[in-house]
Amino acid sequence: MASHTFTVHLQPIGRRVQVRSDQSLLDAAQLAGVELTSLCGGVGVCEACRIRLVKGQLTPLTADESHAFSATQIQQGFRLACQARPLSDAVIEIPPESLSTPQRLQLEGLQKVEDLDPAVRRYFVEIPPPSIEDLRADLTRLRDALEPICPNFECDYKVSQKIPSVCRSSQWKVQAVFHNSRLIQVLPAYPKTKLLGLAVDIGTTKVAAYLVDLETGEVFAQAGSMNPQIAFGEDVISRISYLINHPDQRANPEGNVLHRRIIESLNTLIEQMLAEANEPSLTNEAIVDAVVVGNTAMHHLFAGLPVEQLGVSPYVPAVSEPLYIPARDLGLFIAPSALVYLPPNIAGYVGSDHVAMLLPTIYPYYAAPSQGLSNVMAIDIGTNTEISLLHRREIVSCSCASGPAFEGAHIQYGMRAAPGAIERVQITPEKKILLKTIADQEPVGICGSGILDAIAEMYFADLLDSKGMFLNNHPNIRIQNRRMEFLLVPAEQSGHHQEIVITRRDVNEIQLAKGAIRAGINILLGEAGLRAEDLDALIIAGAFGSYIDVRSAMRIGMLPPIPLERCHQVGNAAGTGAKQMLLSKRYRQVASELAQRIRYIELSNHPKFADEFSKSLFFPPKDLSN
Amino acid sequence: MASHTFTVHLQPIGRRVQVRSDQSLLDAAQLAGVELTSLCGGVGVCEACRIRLVKGQLTPLTADESHAFSATQIQQGFRLACQARPLSDAVIEIPPESLSTPQRLQLEGLQKVEDLDPAVRRYFVEIPPPSIEDLRADLTRLRDALEPICPNFECDYKVSQKIPSVCRSSQWKVQAVFHNSRLIQVLPAYPKTKLLGLAVDIGTTKVAAYLVDLETGEVFAQAGSMNPQIAFGEDVISRISYLINHPDQRANPEGNVLHRRIIESLNTLIEQMLAEANEPSLTNEAIVDAVVVGNTAMHHLFAGLPVEQLGVSPYVPAVSEPLYIPARDLGLFIAPSALVYLPPNIAGYVGSDHVAMLLPTIYPYYAAPSQGLSNVMAIDIGTNTEISLLHRREIVSCSCASGPAFEGAHIQYGMRAAPGAIERVQITPEKKILLKTIADQEPVGICGSGILDAIAEMYFADLLDSKGMFLNNHPNIRIQNRRMEFLLVPAEQSGHHQEIVITRRDVNEIQLAKGAIRAGINILLGEAGLRAEDLDALIIAGAFGSYIDVRSAMRIGMLPPIPLERCHQVGNAAGTGAKQMLLSKRYRQVASELAQRIRYIELSNHPKFADEFSKSLFFPPKDLSN
Repeated sequence: MASHTFTVHLQPIGRRVQVRSDQSLLDAAQLAGVELTSLCGGVGVCEACRIRLVKGQLTPLTADESHAFSATQIQQGFRLACQARPLSDAVIEIPPESLSTPQRLQLEGLQKVEDLDPAVRRYFVEIPPPSIEDLRADLTRLRDALEPICPNFECDYKVSQKIPSVCRSSQWKVQAVFHNSRLIQVLPAYPKTKLLGLAVDIGTTKVAAYLVDLETGEVFAQAGSMNPQIAFGEDVISRISYLINHPDQRANPEGNVLHRRIIESLNTLIEQMLAEANEPSLTNEAIVDAVVVGNTAMHHLFAGLPVEQLGVSPYVPAVSEPLYIPARDLGLFIAPSALVYLPPNIAGYVGSDHVAMLLPTIYPYYAAPSQGLSNVMAIDIGTNTEISLLHRREIVSCSCASGPAFEGAHIQYGMRAAPGAIERVQITPEKKILLKTIADQEPVGICGSGILDAIAEMYFADLLDSKGMFLNNHPNIRIQNRRMEFLLVPAEQSGHHQEIVITRRDVNEIQLAKGAIRAGINILLGEAGLRAEDLDALIIAGAFGSYIDVRSAMRIGMLPPIPLERCHQVGNAAGTGAKQMLLSKRYRQVASELAQRIRYIELSNHPKFADEFSKSLFFPPKDLSN
Repeated sequence: MASHTFTVHLQPIGRRVQVRSDQSLLDAAQLAGVELTSLCGGVGVCEACRIRLVKGQLTPLTADESHAFSATQIQQGFRLACQARPLSDAVIEIPPESLSTPQRLQLEGLQKVEDLDPAVRRYFVEIPPPSIEDLRADLTRLRDALEPICPNFECDYKVSQKIPSVCRSSQWKVQAVFHNSRLIQVLPAYPKTKLLGLAVDIGTTKVAAYLVDLETGEVFAQAGSMNPQIAFGEDVISRISYLINHPDQRANPEGNVLHRRIIESLNTLIEQMLAEANEPSLTNEAIVDAVVVGNTAMHHLFAGLPVEQLGVSPYVPAVSEPLYIPARDLGLFIAPSALVYLPPNIAGYVGSDHVAMLLPTIYPYYAAPSQGLSNVMAIDIGTNTEISLLHRREIVSCSCASGPAFEGAHIQYGMRAAPGAIERVQITPEKKILLKTIADQEPVGICGSGILDAIAEMYFADLLDSKGMFLNNHPNIRIQNRRMEFLLVPAEQSGHHQEIVITRRDVNEIQLAKGAIRAGINILLGEAGLRAEDLDALIIAGAFGSYIDVRSAMRIGMLPPIPLERCHQVGNAAGTGAKQMLLSKRYRQVASELAQRIRYIELSNHPKFADEFSKSLFFPPKDLSN
């Protein structure tokens, strides 16, 4: 039988892909660039690639699938993507847990913006063609036609270059795209393609990008990648050091290599997202606005601003005010005259990503104080942890050097949140060790939430004392090279057939990290004259923050003890904030207002910091009610 | 004897150059990039390289020099540059006639601007360095320091990139350069270099560039070159055709080859002019403003605007309004954030060079009508001849397709105004033919002013009738290939040992050219209801216009018969206008005002044009009083 081709529609991501009838739905997902979790290589064993048929026909259930699902699940349409092949066009739903971690995160950061009021708008206009009686210049002609809608507009020089050809190729029917009152794009009126905006969150480790329909607010496409600057250092300081030690890079007229790499990598993401659209008329020229957020160093590296001064005391940014940069000056592959918006930074280590993160988290409380939630803290945990506290319409912020331990660095068996990483640990009253790994793969290391859990459980199971010293209370506690350590996974149970161990040094790393965060929290609370229990809400944002067990974080004293229901893990709030600023000018004003109103506290300079930090290194008294 | 090195200062150009004692002053001029006329290769025979010693000592007079100069001249210090060598540091004056033609032209276009008020200004400011108590961003810090002088300025993005390093390398003492209220450059406060502006006149054939000190108004350096676009066509239409026929060039993201060539060639001129300065601290970063003028096609090609629509009826420009283009967008090698100003165009064939030319010519009469000179015509003769008429504070303009005959094209022995070109012709009552060539070299061809003279003289000597037909009235009139022609130079007298002849076809070409110009003049006069004798002033600008014999031009009817004292040949008025706009913002406003107020008349569409043109083809009745 000849192979047919069917269209498979992947929900809720909204991608379509053509597949042959001899290709599995796992193939379909891969073709569409959707990373489904698959640990067994598609042979039906790992049962990770679960999807649900919404519409259409698939090949019959295989034995592996019958084994993987309950009768109810089968009735609901659940299938294993690696086993099922299409027999018709089909609509498939991918549950979040079947997506590999980065994609899962991005999806969860999604949020709708209610008040659509983008900085960029377009108008369709018909222009009278020139004649011997009407010798106006093309630009004057366009100006006159737009006079009733947008009088006396500023025209970007690059746009004036294309007006003659666009007008003549479109029989003088064009769409004029304005950024406020500046003409930034001219396109033929037909075909009437979407008008897109780009929102980007540049993390030290990961980059998330979204293409948003500026006229509907819908996320049209999204993509993520590792930050390619990792090749020049895992953390911000080592990347800055790299540039300090490479003056040739600083002098490069094309920008330093870290700048060029992040731009290249964003251009690749843009290409990927456009390719998904599968609409030939939808090109990079249709992307007419962009909002890019990141910590101050990422912001500077993206904008081609120097970062050397961020690496030496007193760590001042080159620029903290909001920037609008023509896309062509950055080499960003969108409409050349689009103005890329970079929201303000607050300080050397509190960047525009934190400002963006405040928009969906603290700002609603700030804007509507009548709701009675007056004391709200938002925290974005990472290599640098930024914390803001809203109290009596004042926002105080600080940045804690929490280090890369939660990213898996400096932990002996640490790893990033990838398949096989231990993300949950439990020690039962019977001292049995229960583990959960990402994608339920055999354990190969411990990620941030796993090490947090492990230490909290060890402390509560009396394997550690409040100073972080090992107590010889468990068969898995042992002495290796004269140091005590805890065997979390024996070699025979691990994915790499290597033991996974937690050392005194690992515990110490986490103590330093959580101590820095807690000291920051305490100092902000102290500045506001509040106790932890006065907090009406504690919002935890970011990739790591979204996956930790908040109770574990409280048990080791990283977070203060407040009722769990007041804690909210909100995912990629910075990305959400970036999208809000893309879709509504008002949020850009809000960002500037917030950045200006925020009182920044430099912890390294704070009289109480050393004291709070050393107190916070220890684990708090056990409160078994938690 | 070991050779010494002396400094030779060349006046009035103001260039200095180091020469060895065994090098001649001709070598010195060549080293300094000053093109002295030298026809004999420096052996003392042509006597063209005359200079005058102002100060210092030179080697004794040679026999050739004693022969070349009168006793008075010798006393005045005249020498032949090829013969004299320095015996000390020396100051040398170069008389205009010793400069080769292009340089002569540029010098003559010079003019001082009285009211200095440039768009660009700089302020020196000391900034408090950051400290742990003062964590403001570098840009904020600069803003605050400049608050009393220039509050709330706009900061060009590229400038913000260099603020941190400039501040730190200069111990926080900087100069901030503003274009109006936009920060376009930051430099260390010391060394306090000159602040320069670039004025450029891009002609279809030649390019003239000036570096002007924005704070004193002095022309700091100047340079000229051929327009490299000539490789793609001698006239505007053939260059446009080239681009119409090469769509790949139009699609090139770096701009088409004509755009790139003119930019490259300007960058070479800039480098040349800076190299002359011989001040290491004076770099392209000190050039912070630029004014570029040209006809509409040159304007468009320079700006990277499309020109295809200029090549087809109704010949509309892409842009006629004034433009400010960041230098980096053009690839112009001056301060990257400098805003290159392009004054407005009036129509497809009346460009910003004509607007610039009006500033030193018609505008003074326009601005001060009380002086009683109310009817003033300005004319810039070239491949396209632009004419403006001021009457009752109204300016009417038109463009005549006079063709390239005056540039030497389409004339059998035509050539550009270069050494050896016949530039003056006289036929004595005894029918003797007297010639003058440029640089007094043996004749090799006829340039525009020469052919104009020749035809006027032939007409007045009854060798031509009023229709341009040859009359057999002179021994040099002969029949060749059944056509009559006039032998101007026999082979034995010519530089190339070839006859130089004027044919019926040459006469016809000049009739077409002068007919087009006169038709334009007449139509403008008619629009204003004036007769030629009502003109209070007739201003003739441009390279060709500055060298013609106005009487000859009147005799053949190219110019209307008015008293010679009302005619003014003013040299490169467009270049002067460009310098005025560089040195005074007010002139930019004036340019916009003039461009808007000008009533443009499209001759090809004018009901009287065909009639006026055919009438103007003939020569007017001879008035021997002229």
